[in-house]
Amino acid sequence: MSDVDAIIAANAAFYAAFAAGDFAALAELWADEETISCIHPGWPAIIGRTAVLGSWRDILRNPARPEIVCAEPQAIVAADQARVLCIELVEGTPLATTNYFKRIDGSWRLVHHQSSPIAQFLGETDDPADPGRSVH
Amino acid sequence: MSDVDAIIAANAAFYAAFAAGDFAALAELWADEETISCIHPGWPAIIGRTAVLGSWRDILRNPARPEIVCAEPQAIVAADQARVLCIELVEGTPLATTNYFKRIDGSWRLVHHQSSPIAQFLGETDDPADPGRSVH
Repeated sequence: MSDVDAIIAANAAFYAAFAAGDFAALAELWADEETISCIHPGWPAIIGRTAVLGSWRDILRNPARPEIVCAEPQAIVAADQARVLCIELVEGTPLATTNYFKRIDGSWRLVHHQSSPIAQFLGETDDPADPGRSVH
Repeated sequence: MSDVDAIIAANAAFYAAFAAGDFAALAELWADEETISCIHPGWPAIIGRTAVLGSWRDILRNPARPEIVCAEPQAIVAADQARVLCIELVEGTPLATTNYFKRIDGSWRLVHHQSSPIAQFLGETDDPADPGRSVH
């Protein structure tokens, strides 16, 4: 399996674990490092295994958590680190997402995740609640 | 200079170039690679040197571009790659930002940038326009 295939598979496993509500599988996908970090949509950054995994545990415990579908994953590899850029469709609403992976003992493990809302540029409305299209 | 100091300095140079409207300095800070990527707030991901630098050129050409102050930068280093997590204060509005750097010929160069609006969790309002606090 090529590096890109392995990274895309690890990325898919992340969303499969989320969909299944399988916290153990999700935790296993994250690197066992104190420097892992995560920026959930609307959140400030959180750093550290306890904080990051705790946030995902809380989300998975919520029976009303949304369905998330990962679309258009693209892997960019640089040596033993890689990022996947993808679209998360959260109940149909698109988020621009970056998942960063690091190769550890031959396995690609998550070290960082960030999801950002995407403004509806191409729609017919000029939405004043747009989360930042003019910001920078 | 330690790696962390060098990375924090490169990150500061990025915001200094933006503040000065210095496109050449900003372009120089980005890696000369076709895989560089950027997720501006509210935007989908853009990939490639032409697209990424073009977006920054357009932003710098806008005389009404906002002031951006970088606060609380934290560098996380892994071999020849590093990420800086920081808060961007855009005319006072906080964004959660990740700047990814790669060491190339001894210099830390940007390979990815993503900024996300931060919801005002601690405010007194429960804003329905919140860009995603309940999303995941």
